[in-house]
Amino acid sequence: MRAAGADLHLELTGDGSRREQVMRALREAIASGRLAPGTRLPAYRSLALDLGIARNTAAEAYAELVAEGWLTARQGSGTRVARRSTPLAPEHVPRPAPPVRRPRHDLMPSSPDATAFPRAAWLTSVRRAVAAAPAEAFGVGDPRGRTELRGALAEYLARARGVRTSPERLVICAGFAHGLRLLGEVLGGPVAVESYGLAFHRSLLTGAGRTTVPLPVDDHGARVEELAATGATAVLLTPAHQFPTGGPLHPERRAAVIDWARATGGLVLEDDYDGEFRYDRQPVGAVQGLDPERVVHLGSISKSLSPALRLGWLALPGRLVDEVLAAKGERELWAGVTDQLALADFIACGAYDRHLRAMRRRYQRRRDLLVATLAARAPHIRVSGIAAGLHAVLELPPGTEPDTLRAARRLGLAVAGLSAYRHPDAAPSPRDGLVIGYGTPPEHGFGAALDALCTALPPAPEHPGPPGG
Amino acid sequence: MRAAGADLHLELTGDGSRREQVMRALREAIASGRLAPGTRLPAYRSLALDLGIARNTAAEAYAELVAEGWLTARQGSGTRVARRSTPLAPEHVPRPAPPVRRPRHDLMPSSPDATAFPRAAWLTSVRRAVAAAPAEAFGVGDPRGRTELRGALAEYLARARGVRTSPERLVICAGFAHGLRLLGEVLGGPVAVESYGLAFHRSLLTGAGRTTVPLPVDDHGARVEELAATGATAVLLTPAHQFPTGGPLHPERRAAVIDWARATGGLVLEDDYDGEFRYDRQPVGAVQGLDPERVVHLGSISKSLSPALRLGWLALPGRLVDEVLAAKGERELWAGVTDQLALADFIACGAYDRHLRAMRRRYQRRRDLLVATLAARAPHIRVSGIAAGLHAVLELPPGTEPDTLRAARRLGLAVAGLSAYRHPDAAPSPRDGLVIGYGTPPEHGFGAALDALCTALPPAPEHPGPPGG
Repeated sequence: MRAAGADLHLELTGDGSRREQVMRALREAIASGRLAPGTRLPAYRSLALDLGIARNTAAEAYAELVAEGWLTARQGSGTRVARRSTPLAPEHVPRPAPPVRRPRHDLMPSSPDATAFPRAAWLTSVRRAVAAAPAEAFGVGDPRGRTELRGALAEYLARARGVRTSPERLVICAGFAHGLRLLGEVLGGPVAVESYGLAFHRSLLTGAGRTTVPLPVDDHGARVEELAATGATAVLLTPAHQFPTGGPLHPERRAAVIDWARATGGLVLEDDYDGEFRYDRQPVGAVQGLDPERVVHLGSISKSLSPALRLGWLALPGRLVDEVLAAKGERELWAGVTDQLALADFIACGAYDRHLRAMRRRYQRRRDLLVATLAARAPHIRVSGIAAGLHAVLELPPGTEPDTLRAARRLGLAVAGLSAYRHPDAAPSPRDGLVIGYGTPPEHGFGAALDALCTALPPAPEHPGPPGG
Repeated sequence: MRAAGADLHLELTGDGSRREQVMRALREAIASGRLAPGTRLPAYRSLALDLGIARNTAAEAYAELVAEGWLTARQGSGTRVARRSTPLAPEHVPRPAPPVRRPRHDLMPSSPDATAFPRAAWLTSVRRAVAAAPAEAFGVGDPRGRTELRGALAEYLARARGVRTSPERLVICAGFAHGLRLLGEVLGGPVAVESYGLAFHRSLLTGAGRTTVPLPVDDHGARVEELAATGATAVLLTPAHQFPTGGPLHPERRAAVIDWARATGGLVLEDDYDGEFRYDRQPVGAVQGLDPERVVHLGSISKSLSPALRLGWLALPGRLVDEVLAAKGERELWAGVTDQLALADFIACGAYDRHLRAMRRRYQRRRDLLVATLAARAPHIRVSGIAAGLHAVLELPPGTEPDTLRAARRLGLAVAGLSAYRHPDAAPSPRDGLVIGYGTPPEHGFGAALDALCTALPPAPEHPGPPGG
């Protein structure tokens, strides 16, 4: 067995103390396989001499690496590379992450214009709120969320959305989906969902142990009069602006769903995802205001401010607060304190209202441009669901949706087909259409996206058949 | 049926337009029961006259409330309060939140000193990072977490903790618990855990469908040589500083657990909760460095910076990244972008290292004061686990733990008994002790907390029995 030493070339580079540099160099030599398991290392005195470092630095580095399991030290056998520290096998070299594919034109109905995030105002709120917060804000917090935020939200939701709640009945979540999953865990029995909606929401509910039952959607929103027949104990609705078909829930159905809840003990889950954006008049207030003991109001700032801040809330019936907090659990999934404090300030100082007004104007301009462009270039395509929100539905001639989506893909245009939102168990009344999100593109890219859209749409029928033909 | 109107006194107050004020006043009158279901409201012309507002303002307010379901409007029947809008029953009035009980002296082993949160430096990082971030940072993000943060963490963890990883193998979570739950969902089979540990971690694993098997803990950490007999497919360890008993995992056991993982295909989950805090020498590097394909390194800033920021990470074997991302799901539980960006800057600019050095000094002073105070006032109590971390274990004479905890409670001292951490299925070798967290109290309160602790401890036996007696 040779006494290694002369050929142990270590290069000491990078930050940190000499000891840290020696340890890093040894770890790298072992991990790469350059120093094989069992190799005997030079005595620490020789290493110190070779590297021009203090003896006790070399001795400490050896001792640390023995403590870490890289080296072994035994009486009479010297210091050796531990047997287990083999290098990574080639197949384990980590793959680089696949690059996130960004379409040339993005008209997917998902998120607001990221370039419109109000950085300066947000930073002002962060600074003011973090500076003013009590020290306990940075300790283990309240699972309901920061009291400042629940106070600001209770006031805002009452004023802007007609929600009847109090800070004690609000629970802050890491976004809408987190809130829906918590409710899925708390509820018993199947949950009725709109027959057109996000598959992602359905899978959150099934992941929490619920089954989902489709409720047909027509021009007046979900047909809540059919709820009783479903056997569901809860219903998830988008009353302000049905997603994706685009209409508000009819006033009589708003009342009828409350009746159903009172008669059966059922719970209404109100997904108020874009309630702030209405263009023809004042936004319709939340259904929750009609009966706060039967309706959970779920909201977030994902559409109004940014989906990257991960902040949402549940306005709960008093009796559900403790159950939801138990499902939320100890310390797991709370939203970060910086954003919670900042949002409380952002709402309280009026910046949130200002931002919403500005975005409402911006999205209304885009909606108007969408409608005008289609009227000029594709007058045979009917647009619906345009009174509110960040998306519209284009009705396509039956059978043309798949070809239209293929044409869009060829043009680098990301856009959703209506059929992608259909509940797999929904009664077969397929509608062909496109769901167009006009929130996502940056201002300068919106015109080109509309142009691509018009190109992808099926042409008008050139020779319409005679009536009754 | 009377034609209401004259007696409809509405007080228009608060923010917003006249229409919003009218709507708010009407909603409140209905919600409180002052306007009963079925009540006929005055014609909008009369209301406008009564309130001194424009006619179309009154008409719009009525129309909005009809759309919201508060009112109904039928030809020939006028506008009425809807039947369903009954007031909240008295038993549904929300209870105020129970006040968070704050003990006079808090020596629970949980969180760092919240008063030491480096607000100014954090705000500097928030400002710089949010200003510099690309616009897409505020759109729908990467479920792995921000690339800036994964880059900064990969570099930091390699340098400070000997972790071998890359940005592609890091997944940002909303704290340690979130990461552990994701792993629980991805793993199959039972998970071995240390026989003394956090019940909260065990319940996270069982909540994700795993069973937990206790692994005995002695002065050299977990007895990993007994792993094979447990049938576990994964093991959760605290190698740097066993929680709560306080020792590091012995170097031979570090190697042995890697051997076990290689022989059985098992996975080691390394909970590196306070790895940065070691007082007698350089912190021991992570076990993960010995075999990044067999060990998941779980870390967070809950001990090092603040548990309120909700940021943690998993350094994963390459083959597990996709499975963990699938469990993480679409948009649900990501950490907020402000804190992610800020932490990346905070690490990269050196503020994190500076903060850790300052806190290490502060906690070392407290530890020294704890040891010195006990040596002076309770020399019969052995202190262990003091080389690292934010807590120590005081060994108590057998059978005295319950009385000591009661005495502490009477003094307003929050402190944990060792038995609270014992796995319910652990072999019966109960140890009496207290787990003392010295991180939580503010600087000015630490002396008084130690004083209360010494008062609560059992007195020295006055007449020790003769040996063998």
